[in-house]
Amino acid sequence: MRIHTVTVCGSDIHYFEHGRIADFVVDGPIILGHEASGTIVNVGSGADPGRIGQRVALEPGISCRTCRHCLEGRYNLCPSMAFHATPPYDGALQTFVALPAHLAHPVPDDVSFERAALVEPLAVAVQACRRARLRGGERVLVAGAGAIGLLCAQVAASMGAAEVVVTDTDPGRVETAKAAFGVQAVLADEVQGDFDCFLECSGANRALVTGLRILRPGSVAVLVGMGQQEMSELPLGWMLVREISLLTTFRYANAYPAAIALAASGQIRLDGLIGASFSLEDSAAAFNQARTNKKILRSAIRMQARGMGMTCAG
Amino acid sequence: MRIHTVTVCGSDIHYFEHGRIADFVVDGPIILGHEASGTIVNVGSGADPGRIGQRVALEPGISCRTCRHCLEGRYNLCPSMAFHATPPYDGALQTFVALPAHLAHPVPDDVSFERAALVEPLAVAVQACRRARLRGGERVLVAGAGAIGLLCAQVAASMGAAEVVVTDTDPGRVETAKAAFGVQAVLADEVQGDFDCFLECSGANRALVTGLRILRPGSVAVLVGMGQQEMSELPLGWMLVREISLLTTFRYANAYPAAIALAASGQIRLDGLIGASFSLEDSAAAFNQARTNKKILRSAIRMQARGMGMTCAG
Amino acid sequence: MRIHTVTVCGSDIHYFEHGRIADFVVDGPIILGHEASGTIVNVGSGADPGRIGQRVALEPGISCRTCRHCLEGRYNLCPSMAFHATPPYDGALQTFVALPAHLAHPVPDDVSFERAALVEPLAVAVQACRRARLRGGERVLVAGAGAIGLLCAQVAASMGAAEVVVTDTDPGRVETAKAAFGVQAVLADEVQGDFDCFLECSGANRALVTGLRILRPGSVAVLVGMGQQEMSELPLGWMLVREISLLTTFRYANAYPAAIALAASGQIRLDGLIGASFSLEDSAAAFNQARTNKKILRSAIRMQARGMGMTCAG
Amino acid sequence: MRIHTVTVCGSDIHYFEHGRIADFVVDGPIILGHEASGTIVNVGSGADPGRIGQRVALEPGISCRTCRHCLEGRYNLCPSMAFHATPPYDGALQTFVALPAHLAHPVPDDVSFERAALVEPLAVAVQACRRARLRGGERVLVAGAGAIGLLCAQVAASMGAAEVVVTDTDPGRVETAKAAFGVQAVLADEVQGDFDCFLECSGANRALVTGLRILRPGSVAVLVGMGQQEMSELPLGWMLVREISLLTTFRYANAYPAAIALAASGQIRLDGLIGASFSLEDSAAAFNQARTNKKILRSAIRMQARGMGMTCAG
Repeated sequence: MRIHTVTVCGSDIHYFEHGRIADFVVDGPIILGHEASGTIVNVGSGADPGRIGQRVALEPGISCRTCRHCLEGRYNLCPSMAFHATPPYDGALQTFVALPAHLAHPVPDDVSFERAALVEPLAVAVQACRRARLRGGERVLVAGAGAIGLLCAQVAASMGAAEVVVTDTDPGRVETAKAAFGVQAVLADEVQGDFDCFLECSGANRALVTGLRILRPGSVAVLVGMGQQEMSELPLGWMLVREISLLTTFRYANAYPAAIALAASGQIRLDGLIGASFSLEDSAAAFNQARTNKKILRSAIRMQARGMGMTCAG
Repeated sequence: MRIHTVTVCGSDIHYFEHGRIADFVVDGPIILGHEASGTIVNVGSGADPGRIGQRVALEPGISCRTCRHCLEGRYNLCPSMAFHATPPYDGALQTFVALPAHLAHPVPDDVSFERAALVEPLAVAVQACRRARLRGGERVLVAGAGAIGLLCAQVAASMGAAEVVVTDTDPGRVETAKAAFGVQAVLADEVQGDFDCFLECSGANRALVTGLRILRPGSVAVLVGMGQQEMSELPLGWMLVREISLLTTFRYANAYPAAIALAASGQIRLDGLIGASFSLEDSAAAFNQARTNKKILRSAIRMQARGMGMTCAG
Repeated sequence: MRIHTVTVCGSDIHYFEHGRIADFVVDGPIILGHEASGTIVNVGSGADPGRIGQRVALEPGISCRTCRHCLEGRYNLCPSMAFHATPPYDGALQTFVALPAHLAHPVPDDVSFERAALVEPLAVAVQACRRARLRGGERVLVAGAGAIGLLCAQVAASMGAAEVVVTDTDPGRVETAKAAFGVQAVLADEVQGDFDCFLECSGANRALVTGLRILRPGSVAVLVGMGQQEMSELPLGWMLVREISLLTTFRYANAYPAAIALAASGQIRLDGLIGASFSLEDSAAAFNQARTNKKILRSAIRMQARGMGMTCAG
Repeated sequence: MRIHTVTVCGSDIHYFEHGRIADFVVDGPIILGHEASGTIVNVGSGADPGRIGQRVALEPGISCRTCRHCLEGRYNLCPSMAFHATPPYDGALQTFVALPAHLAHPVPDDVSFERAALVEPLAVAVQACRRARLRGGERVLVAGAGAIGLLCAQVAASMGAAEVVVTDTDPGRVETAKAAFGVQAVLADEVQGDFDCFLECSGANRALVTGLRILRPGSVAVLVGMGQQEMSELPLGWMLVREISLLTTFRYANAYPAAIALAASGQIRLDGLIGASFSLEDSAAAFNQARTNKKILRSAIRMQARGMGMTCAG
């Protein structure tokens, strides 16, 4: 695959700044980037040569396909997962990347390379909403107006939620959510119940507790954002007498096709996520901008691919 | 409840013409109509007097609330169900109707009485789509471009289907589906697979078999339309080696709130369903028009309510 | 219903000792007891007179049957629930109790009144295991060898768990679990993973955290026991990257028939739960014994019913 | 893998007699047998050499692991499946067989090779019962007292069914079911409702229709047995007004570990399935006996393995 566009995610920036996320520690040079799109330039034996030239979104995790989780269709839980830009695996900020054919998902012509790269965070949102088992008519709370929160809000609406409310502690982000993404948004301390579902995308413990307390009995909260490792003050007694559950969601499995369909449908506003575009030579600027400007949700890096050669395995 | 609008459904017309549907036989005078909206004019003891004046959609089935099905939340299966206009129970084509308070569902001001009456068939579509357990990204086939088919198609799209295709054997209905409801529609013999879900709303055995054969392995078909009582030539062997299942759906349970939210959201085109409006005095004309003009999906009857008095039980 | 036997649960004792559980505060005289069996002595109008004389297990919660939760089949979440021995509602330690007919569940002749009273905690275990959605073949961890833990362990085995391990910090309870209930049991600090499901019945935060950390990726923990109100140190980061979820379960809905079938089947050892039997006059002794002797899981109180008269509503 | 025991299934006999099953046609020499157990004698590169010597049950289907169905965990639906003894793929009646390592499932020492071979039909029963989503307390009907029916009945009981009734048209099979397998069994025309779940294992259309008509509203039937390809007289109208669904089940995915746990637990009576044992040289006799003696559910063929050498792929 020749890489065309890589968008820079918060986890990339976190590794760039801190060198680790939880137990994943960078202890050598690593190539970042796991939200990527490109073009198939060659295929391995066993793969369909007709796919050469296809524009694709890259699903960035290579799982073992023989462990119990892979066989059960939850390959996101594979203990042998080699995931782009998660140490020690290199990411997609390269001219060429080789990947098993089934992880190179074709995108329609009218989905730009930028949007194709953003299929990755969109797949995170699809997985989160599927975990919540929406069945139509729900009132959904989303905490956190970052990229994942804004995508979760839109995906929840596309999956039948009757009403979606996004919260954030930052007034600017609340405004952007409304203006650029068309979602209902309020300041975190102004939100009021009763919700049927809560997608926690802020990573803030306080948002988690607040959200749990304005859920209707029998509801579910889904923990999407990774914040502090340890949680204090989770209101277990409150949750128990209301049969409120706390689900978690991690990356995605089998979500790319649905995410691409959503990206192509025009229902999801993806373009507003990208603040600015940079060349590969200016990637440091891309990282710095994303790091310092809280209003920028994603920076896009356009690769200067000049040749071809790497193969996509069969 | 003072009834404002009743829309006339195919089953009403069927009773009007044939005096029976399957095992439900009309053997005395019966008042028809089960798609109705109106205004609460009085409440019984135990009900909230603050609800007087509220505009409501009427959920037309009174269940026992103590049988196993009611207790399990599937009250549509209650063997003691008293359902409007299903013999021997009278329907809603009356000036006043009394109903348990929880079956009078408030509708927002911007939902007209016509649309509020149509919440009933919309609830049928919500139940059908819930039975299918859509999880986002599906390619959905809907057979039959009648009112239920057109609603199912729109509800499936609102619940995350990536693509919905409606089929009908009548070219005029196919055109109407596209022009008035904005859904993708084709003639029944031109449809091509592979679908992830099939909602059979035509009542035609041939459509059922055709649909089953263009489903992907592992998919579900949901039987929504009631056609012939006995089925021949169901391709069980084909279904079995593909793990394709045939689900059924009957009326609805707990679907009114979601249906009202959809009616209010503007996502569902309801108005195109109503061909013409009649006064109560002209109901026979309403029935006849609906019976003879296949292009008319629903006729609406506006009641001339002049007084008040019946109560809504607590 | 003439009450025959009431078994004394930990929550009864807690009210007896402390006058409150969480937000439920005893602020006047209250009759305790919610695990009860008896005989129908009269029926209200609308109920079946043929049921007089029937031996029954009492489901102790009267829900409104019109709220959203009741209509959806999750009546355990009804905000208007009147539950025996939960303030301000009186419990079953009376000669006669009136109850809606559908809450008086007939038991087979070979199920004793003691076992019929224990259907209540058995229903708690059925609900907990249903919440876990066992599908056969699981390795299940149960923390806490109290009555609920021992019942959960046995119910999980009856629902297809391949292996069930009960843990407790008390060596005596571990021994009793093995000797009197035939379950596999170990000391809490000796248990080793990997489990597919974890039923937390101890109410101890430490047990919750330990159990979460020896679950396989993709598993669920179900919080059954109510311990401290607020939880610290819940390993959210650990859970998230493994998609481990924390479900809660509260009382039960629609679980009595299954619990009675289990009680009748002989698969569940119930008798070992009852340490001693007392007469109504000696109830204080029953409470005291249960309070002071940790080895006694339940005390049974046999009522001295001498008359008849209260009716069971239709 | 050195094969130790192969049990002969109805489909093997069907190919032997008729040369085809539905669309699967034998058009050249084929080696039969897909219920097999043996010992690992060598491993490919990438597989764990420590597994040499392990006693295993063979899962006989090699799927592609990259198609949508494989990735979603439903590899039984893989269109590229190479399944033992399904044309054109050879089966297990060989001295040595090579298989991907994850399809060679270790069995405990106390599970004999005969029982290990029978894990295959047991996995079919596990899949069927999982498809039915039993949740404890059900009354289950099983039509057909052949091997699959008897296994489904026992697995349903092990997964929480409160009562299981097996039916057959053959009085001898009814007797065997009761005497040798300890299940409740009656003649097909004597069975009476109301069941919560129906597992159709007879392949007879009449049994399917009869069973559907004695299901409770809201129940599911699962089609396990493959009988006639086309079905007539399926009571669709009856099913629809009761929301009764017809699910199908095909082979299994991710069911071997649960099936092995059940085989090891002693809960399932497997030994009664095997009528007689034969040597490889006498396999024709094994087939003939199974073909002509309806009382023999399975014949076992013991391979005379004298060497070693084939490898199990990594």
